[in-house]
Amino acid sequence: MIYLDNSATTKPNKQAVDMASSFIYENFYNPSASYREGLCVSKAIDEAKENILSCLNANTNYKLVFTSCGTEADNQALISFAKRGNIVISSGEHAAIYQTANQLKNKGIELRLAKLNTNGSVDVDDLLSLVDDKTCLVSVIHINNETGAVNDIDGIGRRIKEKNAKTIVHSDGVQAFGKLYYKLNSVIDAYSISAHKIGGFKGNGALIYKNNLHLTPVIFGGGQENNLRSGTENVFGIKSFEYAARLRYENFDAIYAKTVELNKKMVNGLNKEYFSFISDENSSPFILSVSAKNVRGEVLMHMLNENQVLVSNGSACSSKNRYSRVILACGIDKNIADGVLRLSLGEDNTQEEIEEAVKILNSTAKELFERMK
Amino acid sequence: MIYLDNSATTKPNKQAVDMASSFIYENFYNPSASYREGLCVSKAIDEAKENILSCLNANTNYKLVFTSCGTEADNQALISFAKRGNIVISSGEHAAIYQTANQLKNKGIELRLAKLNTNGSVDVDDLLSLVDDKTCLVSVIHINNETGAVNDIDGIGRRIKEKNAKTIVHSDGVQAFGKLYYKLNSVIDAYSISAHKIGGFKGNGALIYKNNLHLTPVIFGGGQENNLRSGTENVFGIKSFEYAARLRYENFDAIYAKTVELNKKMVNGLNKEYFSFISDENSSPFILSVSAKNVRGEVLMHMLNENQVLVSNGSACSSKNRYSRVILACGIDKNIADGVLRLSLGEDNTQEEIEEAVKILNSTAKELFERMK
Repeated sequence: MIYLDNSATTKPNKQAVDMASSFIYENFYNPSASYREGLCVSKAIDEAKENILSCLNANTNYKLVFTSCGTEADNQALISFAKRGNIVISSGEHAAIYQTANQLKNKGIELRLAKLNTNGSVDVDDLLSLVDDKTCLVSVIHINNETGAVNDIDGIGRRIKEKNAKTIVHSDGVQAFGKLYYKLNSVIDAYSISAHKIGGFKGNGALIYKNNLHLTPVIFGGGQENNLRSGTENVFGIKSFEYAARLRYENFDAIYAKTVELNKKMVNGLNKEYFSFISDENSSPFILSVSAKNVRGEVLMHMLNENQVLVSNGSACSSKNRYSRVILACGIDKNIADGVLRLSLGEDNTQEEIEEAVKILNSTAKELFERMK
Repeated sequence: MIYLDNSATTKPNKQAVDMASSFIYENFYNPSASYREGLCVSKAIDEAKENILSCLNANTNYKLVFTSCGTEADNQALISFAKRGNIVISSGEHAAIYQTANQLKNKGIELRLAKLNTNGSVDVDDLLSLVDDKTCLVSVIHINNETGAVNDIDGIGRRIKEKNAKTIVHSDGVQAFGKLYYKLNSVIDAYSISAHKIGGFKGNGALIYKNNLHLTPVIFGGGQENNLRSGTENVFGIKSFEYAARLRYENFDAIYAKTVELNKKMVNGLNKEYFSFISDENSSPFILSVSAKNVRGEVLMHMLNENQVLVSNGSACSSKNRYSRVILACGIDKNIADGVLRLSLGEDNTQEEIEEAVKILNSTAKELFERMK
């Protein structure tokens, strides 16, 4: 099986899981317990925060709250900072931002959507034109989860602050954390990340936010996480997240360079008679969005599945709709949108796998293409 | 180390974790992915729902949504059903209910608190007197997490429905699931449970609700869990939860009988010169709430910690306050409330451990008692 859906989820990193395993049976204590063993687990959570923040060089100016997923982190960012006036988001946001923003719209916050460029990045001038003195929050995805387009969130953040210094700038960094050389810049007020996209477990995310800001809880109860996120902390998941992040950043250069090479192999190897590209040279090497000509992506995806290649037609989180909202927002025709496949790489992928996958992609697309003629 | 804080969290059940382990590396796929391997994981989640519901004999009339913890399940229940008018909760509710109810109060819902009996169970007549034609929701904890008092939620539910058939009845079953012979009765509309109190992982809970009811999401995004709980499902945690629940219910009679015996050993063994009891014969055998005379529970807890016995002074979730809100609501004097310790049993505890723990509890309390004279 060749797994090319690493942006949907990754296989947990065995080394990280093994490193965290003492938190299953040995240090299983409740981090809120006041005895030594509980305090020890609580300290281990604090260490995880510091170590994850240090991956982004953010220890001095930022804090981190652990959440149950990237989606919850996105929800908490919006709920914390979108209190009145208007919010501006890109049309390329993940459903975690898009749907939450629409909830806020129902509660009277004005929602403004910035246009996308063809590759899925935000049209920065359009975004800026939507920011005014009543804009409490702008949220722009760091790497688009469908096309891989990288938004220059620091540059965008700076221009937003020039226009309205009080506007909070949030970015969904779920597809960027561990996949892009990036250190948090003070122009970014809050940043969401997720564990299971980089070898951690599903069920763990975090919201990173500037020291001087106050978050609003989404979940109320026992006051865990400094009253910002109630519910007993998922300690084993948190420690696996920490170790997966550390391992990823320790080996960042090698992983990134390999991924660039594998991506190039796909771009060069895919037959342009059957495939066009939505991702471009601006996109993250971890995501290659292509469109199969005259073929429904869903049909091709299922045939590839038969042929032992796992890819996604669009994001796993919006797999129920025929056309992707985000791909259409790129201004892409429905017949091209209909053929979209997302090939996403992870650190486990090998040269041999990619060569084999390219062959299978080409032959399967050709077969379908001929059949449709 | 003798661990008597199983109501705070339990050590994961190794057999359950081993049974779920194929969902770490082998079946790591995103359950929202449309290829066969993703659908397979999605089916495994559905099976987990059915198997957990069957523990409560609830497959026919109830559905289940997985949440990130019992606290989130409690939040979702309240947010779903407390829409207008008033809500009635007992004064013995866990912070997950109590704090969320107070949030709703800030939003204009009237909050009514029913009194407690001395053992921590709800004063049913007082509760009923608070229910009127504007009561949209009543929430009563099934087993009080601090005193172990068991509320007859079926009897209470029936009387509520007689008074107002439209009132939704919810119960926080976090300390009852797997610890009480109980099958869900149709008078209960919604029921919260948690994995890590019965050998599952922290980071997993569920809200069980009647077929005909509609839940409101707490977290918005990709529409996972039939649009009721967005965010990629914590599959490994969910499967561990399922297996832990199944193992618990398969061995229920033996575990329960052993726990009754261990509890009796504690009640009989503790020296009444130094300890009084808050739990009574109505309480769950899994929780024994005692008060050390003339001694601060916190001090005793730390000394016991030195002597290798782990107990809690109150609930782990409210360990930051000197007096427990719930214990005071039982009408217990502050000097008794100050000495409260919660001894909570789990299926790993042995006869020998309990005998040893009783000796240490008695000698440590005696030592402190003498010192205070």
